[in-house]
Amino acid sequence: MASSIVFYDIPSTLPINAWSPNTWKTRYALNFKGLSYRTEWIEYPDIEALCKKIGAPHTRNKPDGRPHYTLPVIHDLSTGAIVVESSKIVAYLDATYPDTPRLLPPGTLGLYQAFEDAALALTPAIGLFVIPSVPRILNPASLEYFHITRGALFGKKLDEVIPTGDAYGPAWQKLKDSFGKIDSWIRANGEESTYIMGDTICYADLFIAAYVLWFKLVLPEKWDEAKTWHEGRWEKLLENTAKYEAVL
Amino acid sequence: MASSIVFYDIPSTLPINAWSPNTWKTRYALNFKGLSYRTEWIEYPDIEALCKKIGAPHTRNKPDGRPHYTLPVIHDLSTGAIVVESSKIVAYLDATYPDTPRLLPPGTLGLYQAFEDAALALTPAIGLFVIPSVPRILNPASLEYFHITRGALFGKKLDEVIPTGDAYGPAWQKLKDSFGKIDSWIRANGEESTYIMGDTICYADLFIAAYVLWFKLVLPEKWDEAKTWHEGRWEKLLENTAKYEAVL
Repeated sequence: MASSIVFYDIPSTLPINAWSPNTWKTRYALNFKGLSYRTEWIEYPDIEALCKKIGAPHTRNKPDGRPHYTLPVIHDLSTGAIVVESSKIVAYLDATYPDTPRLLPPGTLGLYQAFEDAALALTPAIGLFVIPSVPRILNPASLEYFHITRGALFGKKLDEVIPTGDAYGPAWQKLKDSFGKIDSWIRANGEESTYIMGDTICYADLFIAAYVLWFKLVLPEKWDEAKTWHEGRWEKLLENTAKYEAVL
Repeated sequence: MASSIVFYDIPSTLPINAWSPNTWKTRYALNFKGLSYRTEWIEYPDIEALCKKIGAPHTRNKPDGRPHYTLPVIHDLSTGAIVVESSKIVAYLDATYPDTPRLLPPGTLGLYQAFEDAALALTPAIGLFVIPSVPRILNPASLEYFHITRGALFGKKLDEVIPTGDAYGPAWQKLKDSFGKIDSWIRANGEESTYIMGDTICYADLFIAAYVLWFKLVLPEKWDEAKTWHEGRWEKLLENTAKYEAVL
């Protein structure tokens, strides 16, 4: 059947193309629900013009106050809806397609939002290692934009961001501890728990998987160490979410 | 019937006696489930000796590495269990008393734990105003202990902690924004949502109510302003949880 949802994502030089954790959250969600969609690939410098053209609102403001437009964005051709930001897309998809598997059980949107805030507080420890290596998988069209915006984020050139020397050990431990915190949430359900909700996968797990996959795709040489952490929990998570990895 | 659970709490000079947010979480939980319990009141300097006597483990370590014992602690006389820390007490009560109202729905312990981490990250903004005023409601037996331990926490005398002058406005705004963050979690379920899970109260709401009640009890003159925030949400929360406020 014709694709009913257009999903805008950022391309790369990787064979799988998709790489951004923020858009992977939405791709996982679309695949999890088995919805028909097709990807339109947008390089970073073209995101703003695309959003203005299709009427997608900006999600935040730049340091100088100008609107900042971001992906993921979906355009649902069957309803006409344009939805931006991964968590809003999840709420939209669960509400609009009630006959598909639910990403979040009824009543858990508030707890999920708190989970997301807590998880996002952990992601800078991952980004410190992964973000500086993203340029090696970006297409030339996105490189300058990425260097300028992410360099501004860290206040220095990207190739000076990765911790070295005495700073390496503590930063790497902090990254491991961040995964350890998520591990503790999963184990709150019991030591044998596999997912944030115990035995059943939900969008919170896909959210985590998006960051783990990002780590693996961009920094495979470091991933080889990290995948052994927490009794191999993160490698097993990617094995369990591999069925939602189709890039359509 | 005879009380089957002994609940250890910290007394005060307030007519209602109970005041600590951490023990209020457990009191709310016990009352919510309608369990039979009686309170034993323990002044701060006596907590360690009590815990050692009944075999309650310490919950963390002091800066110098020595074990740090904290309340709440419950001693369930019908099972012999000693349980420490509010979130562990919740998991214990839901597992041990399945025929009473559930504090957290099945499968939500992991999401709840992430919620708790996110909420605890907001509480220092409240504590900055409330903690320095706690001495005015403590009994003399607990005063010195509280001044020494909380002074060490802030690195200054407690009466120098409350923001004044130019520091007052931003700190008060940060406190309001912290409640605003919780308000956004509740509204993730929809604009008409009353609780973290929408229409249904759960332990996450009691957790929040414990801090709101603490604020109201210790700092009533500031509460008069805060209770109007977010369309009176926090005052309504206390109205809705008043039925779980019995001090038995």
